[in-house]
Amino acid sequence: MADNKFVYFFGGNKTEGKNSMKELLGGKGANLAEMANLGIPVPPGFTITTEVCVQYLKDKDYPKGLLEQVDAAIVKLEEVVGKKFGDNENPLLVSVRSGARVSMPGMMDTVLNLGLNDASVLGLAKNTENPRFAYDSYRRFLTMFGDVVLGIEHDKFEHALSEKKHALGVKLDNELGVNALKELVEQFKLIIEHETGKQFPQDARTQLLMSIDAVFQSWNNQRAITYRKLNNIPMEWGTAVNVQSMVYGNMGETSGTGVAFTRDPATGHKRFYGEYLINAQGEDVVAGIRTPRPISTLKEAMPIAFKQLEEIYIKLENHFRDMQDIEFTIEQGTLYMLQTRNGKRTAAAAIKIAADMVAEGLIDKKTAILRIEPNQIDKLLHPMIDPQATLQVVATGLPASPGAAVGKVVFTAEHAEQMAESGAKVILVRTETSPEDIGGMNAAEGILTVRGGMTSHAAVVARGMGKPCVAGCGEISIDIKKGVFSAGSCSIHEGDYISIDGSTGHVIVGKVPLITPEVSGELKTVLKWADEVRTLGVRTNADTPYDASVAREFGAEGIGLCRTEHMFFGEERIPVVREMIMAETEAARRSALVKLLPMQREDFAGIFHAMEGYPVTIRLLDPPLHEFLPNHEEALEKLMELESKDAPESEINKVKKVMERIEFLKEINPMLGFRGCRLGVVYPEIYEMQVQAIIEAACELTKEGMTIVPEIMIPLISHVKELQIVKQQVVKVASAVMADKDVKINYKIGTMIELPRAALTADKIALEADFFSFGTNDLTQTTFGFSRDDAAKFLPAYIEKSILEHDPFAVLDQSGVGELIKIGIDKGRSTKSDLKIGICGEHGGEPSSVIFGHKVGLNYVSCSPFRVPVARMAAAHAAIQEEEMNKK
Amino acid sequence: MADNKFVYFFGGNKTEGKNSMKELLGGKGANLAEMANLGIPVPPGFTITTEVCVQYLKDKDYPKGLLEQVDAAIVKLEEVVGKKFGDNENPLLVSVRSGARVSMPGMMDTVLNLGLNDASVLGLAKNTENPRFAYDSYRRFLTMFGDVVLGIEHDKFEHALSEKKHALGVKLDNELGVNALKELVEQFKLIIEHETGKQFPQDARTQLLMSIDAVFQSWNNQRAITYRKLNNIPMEWGTAVNVQSMVYGNMGETSGTGVAFTRDPATGHKRFYGEYLINAQGEDVVAGIRTPRPISTLKEAMPIAFKQLEEIYIKLENHFRDMQDIEFTIEQGTLYMLQTRNGKRTAAAAIKIAADMVAEGLIDKKTAILRIEPNQIDKLLHPMIDPQATLQVVATGLPASPGAAVGKVVFTAEHAEQMAESGAKVILVRTETSPEDIGGMNAAEGILTVRGGMTSHAAVVARGMGKPCVAGCGEISIDIKKGVFSAGSCSIHEGDYISIDGSTGHVIVGKVPLITPEVSGELKTVLKWADEVRTLGVRTNADTPYDASVAREFGAEGIGLCRTEHMFFGEERIPVVREMIMAETEAARRSALVKLLPMQREDFAGIFHAMEGYPVTIRLLDPPLHEFLPNHEEALEKLMELESKDAPESEINKVKKVMERIEFLKEINPMLGFRGCRLGVVYPEIYEMQVQAIIEAACELTKEGMTIVPEIMIPLISHVKELQIVKQQVVKVASAVMADKDVKINYKIGTMIELPRAALTADKIALEADFFSFGTNDLTQTTFGFSRDDAAKFLPAYIEKSILEHDPFAVLDQSGVGELIKIGIDKGRSTKSDLKIGICGEHGGEPSSVIFGHKVGLNYVSCSPFRVPVARMAAAHAAIQEEEMNKK
Repeated sequence: MADNKFVYFFGGNKTEGKNSMKELLGGKGANLAEMANLGIPVPPGFTITTEVCVQYLKDKDYPKGLLEQVDAAIVKLEEVVGKKFGDNENPLLVSVRSGARVSMPGMMDTVLNLGLNDASVLGLAKNTENPRFAYDSYRRFLTMFGDVVLGIEHDKFEHALSEKKHALGVKLDNELGVNALKELVEQFKLIIEHETGKQFPQDARTQLLMSIDAVFQSWNNQRAITYRKLNNIPMEWGTAVNVQSMVYGNMGETSGTGVAFTRDPATGHKRFYGEYLINAQGEDVVAGIRTPRPISTLKEAMPIAFKQLEEIYIKLENHFRDMQDIEFTIEQGTLYMLQTRNGKRTAAAAIKIAADMVAEGLIDKKTAILRIEPNQIDKLLHPMIDPQATLQVVATGLPASPGAAVGKVVFTAEHAEQMAESGAKVILVRTETSPEDIGGMNAAEGILTVRGGMTSHAAVVARGMGKPCVAGCGEISIDIKKGVFSAGSCSIHEGDYISIDGSTGHVIVGKVPLITPEVSGELKTVLKWADEVRTLGVRTNADTPYDASVAREFGAEGIGLCRTEHMFFGEERIPVVREMIMAETEAARRSALVKLLPMQREDFAGIFHAMEGYPVTIRLLDPPLHEFLPNHEEALEKLMELESKDAPESEINKVKKVMERIEFLKEINPMLGFRGCRLGVVYPEIYEMQVQAIIEAACELTKEGMTIVPEIMIPLISHVKELQIVKQQVVKVASAVMADKDVKINYKIGTMIELPRAALTADKIALEADFFSFGTNDLTQTTFGFSRDDAAKFLPAYIEKSILEHDPFAVLDQSGVGELIKIGIDKGRSTKSDLKIGICGEHGGEPSSVIFGHKVGLNYVSCSPFRVPVARMAAAHAAIQEEEMNKK
Repeated sequence: MADNKFVYFFGGNKTEGKNSMKELLGGKGANLAEMANLGIPVPPGFTITTEVCVQYLKDKDYPKGLLEQVDAAIVKLEEVVGKKFGDNENPLLVSVRSGARVSMPGMMDTVLNLGLNDASVLGLAKNTENPRFAYDSYRRFLTMFGDVVLGIEHDKFEHALSEKKHALGVKLDNELGVNALKELVEQFKLIIEHETGKQFPQDARTQLLMSIDAVFQSWNNQRAITYRKLNNIPMEWGTAVNVQSMVYGNMGETSGTGVAFTRDPATGHKRFYGEYLINAQGEDVVAGIRTPRPISTLKEAMPIAFKQLEEIYIKLENHFRDMQDIEFTIEQGTLYMLQTRNGKRTAAAAIKIAADMVAEGLIDKKTAILRIEPNQIDKLLHPMIDPQATLQVVATGLPASPGAAVGKVVFTAEHAEQMAESGAKVILVRTETSPEDIGGMNAAEGILTVRGGMTSHAAVVARGMGKPCVAGCGEISIDIKKGVFSAGSCSIHEGDYISIDGSTGHVIVGKVPLITPEVSGELKTVLKWADEVRTLGVRTNADTPYDASVAREFGAEGIGLCRTEHMFFGEERIPVVREMIMAETEAARRSALVKLLPMQREDFAGIFHAMEGYPVTIRLLDPPLHEFLPNHEEALEKLMELESKDAPESEINKVKKVMERIEFLKEINPMLGFRGCRLGVVYPEIYEMQVQAIIEAACELTKEGMTIVPEIMIPLISHVKELQIVKQQVVKVASAVMADKDVKINYKIGTMIELPRAALTADKIALEADFFSFGTNDLTQTTFGFSRDDAAKFLPAYIEKSILEHDPFAVLDQSGVGELIKIGIDKGRSTKSDLKIGICGEHGGEPSSVIFGHKVGLNYVSCSPFRVPVARMAAAHAAIQEEEMNKK
């Protein structure tokens, strides 16, 4: 607190602050000062700085000199306004409002009409010749002061007011006469005395200091803390206090108050949008007792004030170069501005306003880009629940894949497929999903699971498909046998309608109306601008030609991760895959693989075709083999069924063999088990088949004149020697195929970096790799020692207790996992400077993680198709931020 | 190859090499030169350097000038010996032997009598007046040359020899007359021609060059490669070739040959020990056809030679200051030394010799310490299989806990306890063990498991108990219902005797005789010396007062890891633990914990008592809770049993509840699940009870006048905030107890560093921790992404393919996991310079890992009680090595 200046005056040509002082004066205070500087009529007042708040909360006392400065500011205010604070004849009344750097719900809001007491109310009545107004102001002040400063339940005052109206047989507050208001004032003072044990303070200065106190204290109330936590607002910011002379919208039919937006905050259309109330003060507009009138009617009601308002809002928008959210009061025909700030807007509006303002020459493209939160874009691509709808939310899980869906409950993937075939819309409800459920997930409108986190199988696959998913909804429990799931006291049967909202995690009983936001041309425009500035590539994770083409539509510049295991689950394939797994000799395994070869070749040809001209990174088989076998219970059931109907010994033995294999392949920690390149090392023939299929498909399409860029990716490398061995196999097979087909394919061989050891020894691994792709899902699991399938048991408590700010499977943990990524990049490029590096975990589509990726020097990120536009926008943000840093 | 000198002469006062040139001349060559320098009679010869080998194998050709130098050396040799190489009248015969820096079985060994051919054999016969000797030498040469140079199966020659003896009705080789030998020579030449398609080369120089070639080639034969891999010998060392003039022990009754040790290699006693054969050459002694005579009888047989031999062996031992393994030949009364080298010895002998030589003033203490391989000590502490016994090994698993055991097969822990109670010795055979099996493991003589690696539950617990264990023996399969396990074609039933050798991994049918090596006073002496030089502390991992006192006997300076979960499995405890887990409210949980409190307090009091004066690091509860519940199958069986006998509803419901809980707590990857401090964060009351028990026990004993040093260790920290939260709880409870008891305990709070994220953010974590303890088991699991329970499926292939040199759960992976340890230490000490750091994984007792720990600056290692002496010795090695490095 270098200069010991704690108080900044605004209005009456004595303004000391300005717009750029938001850190010190808070948003509201800085903007009031700025409006005053612009010559816009603002009721004069002063702002106590955020620094005072921080010191006050730390020391439990005000900094030396504060009270003197407040008193001096009051004196200045008295001079400017021509009234005296605490005076009985011509009292200066003020409002007291909090104002942090950013708008913060949950903090103490507003005390109006401060300075009134039993004596000054008489002066006000006399001066305004309006005793009703004076007592109405007084009872409002008592209510607000009692509520927000003294902490008395608002209901206590409301109750007395209602009783009074009831007794008098009136409905609206403004129908109460002066006597009734006088009686209420007395009642309210008694309530205060009764509730606090102390009399209502008649002294204006005491009222003021108590209110300032209350504002500062409210920075640390529970709601404010929670809000800050949710929105990553540092505790250290503190709030400012704005003390402003009162103007009155409740002085009769030529007075009023209103709020407005300079453009439509829902659609972004360029039209003045808002509402107002005649003869009303402050909260009346939002309280909803009287219905406010649309702002357009003000033109007729008060043409002069409206014209002035129009000029001001245009001036403000041009000055701040952004859509403004304004508050105004008209006191007996004179317009005053009480607030201006950048207006909140829907995703669609954000994009339209940004694009329009560029067209209008108000802002440049980069500013437009920064105005759009990357995450907002995602909302535009998914159906959402009509905000007007009333919802019966019976449970809340993790918002695992955005968008909303409505359908009939089914409990098995099989059933989902049957129902969908017969034309029904279904929601697949499972304890957890496994790769076998893919068909059913695809057939369903949305997926709801009891277990699993943001990167559980259900979540990952649903995001890939662009389907809504609520995961890890531990509040529900499923009884498949009875065909019912329960959520609280609710029982929902198979076939009942439910709705899920994958953006909020809500599970809702019944059918809710959905709206599908339109993808506007402006979105395409701003994404094009984003592409112009970003340097980070954006690819997609896609396993099918359909996904690949969707992603390409969304602007993906290649595939960063094509998982080959999902292809193994097709109906005609899984028996062959199982044959391969059941094989006891290499020869038997090879003969099964020969059958899979043409299918895989066809898969790859389709994907190459859809991504023609762009690189396609194909990860060789990764999951443990037991994932492809039926689970133990299923096999046991099958066995019992066969035995019960006296099936032939040979059939029974077959099932028994499968069960033996299941037992043999069973793993205690499959995540850390026999998977990834470990399979490739022990059973080279599997990877050989896959490489043959990849290169054959590439040769085929190359012959047809297409440009095919295959990148073969080896998963789960922990030691460079694994890569050496597998790479040798890959090169051998690829060379043989190319020689056979007489085509030269310019393929690359790279590796996932998804284990700490790989990152720690990346210098050695880089020598064998054309590219790295950080598998941040697995890397997060091993770095934290968190199983993403099991973390639901403690992660919520971890977020709750602020151990973690975010689910690290959703938002990359920059200080831990990110540190390992940095080590991996540094070491990798230390031995191969032109190493191409990307990430292909779920984080590739999460804005803060994308920005981190840009900062640490990745070449590209890869994410599910529907996140591609988000990643493009985030990458643009990162590039612009870097540019601005460099300017400094 | 700076000076282009490829050949070094020795003997005849023309010796060019010396002992310190082992790298260049190999061990044998350098020692032959050294003996010549000492004036000891050595048949003259020359050594071709290891550099030639390396270049030859690289370039597939000899360096320029080599052949000229060999020819020159032959000329010099001819001059010294007075015979001519390839001469028909007075032929110079030579031996050709390989000689790497260290003795290496599997390489080409020896060709004797080289230079003989159809003409020179006549000259030899004439010169020696002993045609039988000449042809005997020739047929030996043909056999050796055919076998080791030309690669013809030795059996082919043996077969012909046997037939000849059979035809002539004699038993021993030396009963064959000259004619028979002549016929054999002809036969052998035909065998060579038949097998190689070429005639036996009559030219002596050709014979020599082919033999040199064969020695160099043998460096890369499969057996040599395997041996090098097993013993960490670099490929780049290469081998030297020694060409030496022949002397003959087979020239009649005044000739002979023998091998001897300067001290007893089995016991270390100071007595000349060895054997010899009269009228024999080279291999005859070891071939075992004739029984050699003890060396002591040589004194009578050839007193002069024996006296000379005595003088020489004493000279050699004094010169080399180590026990020597010597070879000699007596040719017609004249003694020649053919080899001296440091002798291999048993663990017991190594220790006795080292201690004795210090007492004799031959070596200093540090040299004595370096003479003892730390791992050797381990063998002295466990029973071993009598090396004389014949074994029927039916399967081989991992050598998971050293020592051998004999007992009757049992398949359940329960049964093991019953049988042991009735006095039987049992071997517990399980697919895998779990904490519930502890009782049975303790009752058994040894443990054999089908699954799991070197750090599986069975292995860790067995090592802790000092019990032999063979783990991960995938070759056997158990059928518990039938009460039998099969190994190959063998079926072994419950109650049958088997033996296991936990040092080799062997599973043996029947009872084998065991011997228990005695722990000598010399061991204590050298361990005391080790303690004098080492700077690294050695603690133990111990969970019981008994383990603690065993470890203290072995020299442990405190407990580095006391796991509290094993205490939860006691018979009277597990029901209370389950009650705690089944509790649905905090209150219910607390009421179960109250019952556990006195038991835990007693546990800790016992351990503190046993370790009085030393720090005791107690890890708060770590494993996931489901480990304490029965498994699903057991519960299901119980349920079916209750239902079948129409048990009351309430009992059935109780089991159903347990099953629900099992289902709820089930984890897909328990290693990465709801365990460690995650339990402490979510259910603080569990840790509160443990801390209360720890501090109460400490207070109690302190009041009795003991010095108690508790260190409370929080497991599985990934984020500093976890530690902050848990630490707060710990401090709160500890302070309350100390205030209540009015005792001040100087306790510490520290954390395991066992997750990559903890190491990566150790700078932050150190601010909250008094100490770090690297949990290298879990750190290895997460760094590699290897589940120690599942890795058996691919780890053997990884070792086989040289992807990994060692099982990383047995030998610390220094370049990956070690890198993370270094990061953790550097970061931790960057914010807290006096941070105490140890490791408490299984690696704490593995010598190379201990040495690594010393290098990176650990304060201590902690290992199972039986490994404590090993760690003390390894720590001493590390300190001496560092001292020597600093001298350079």
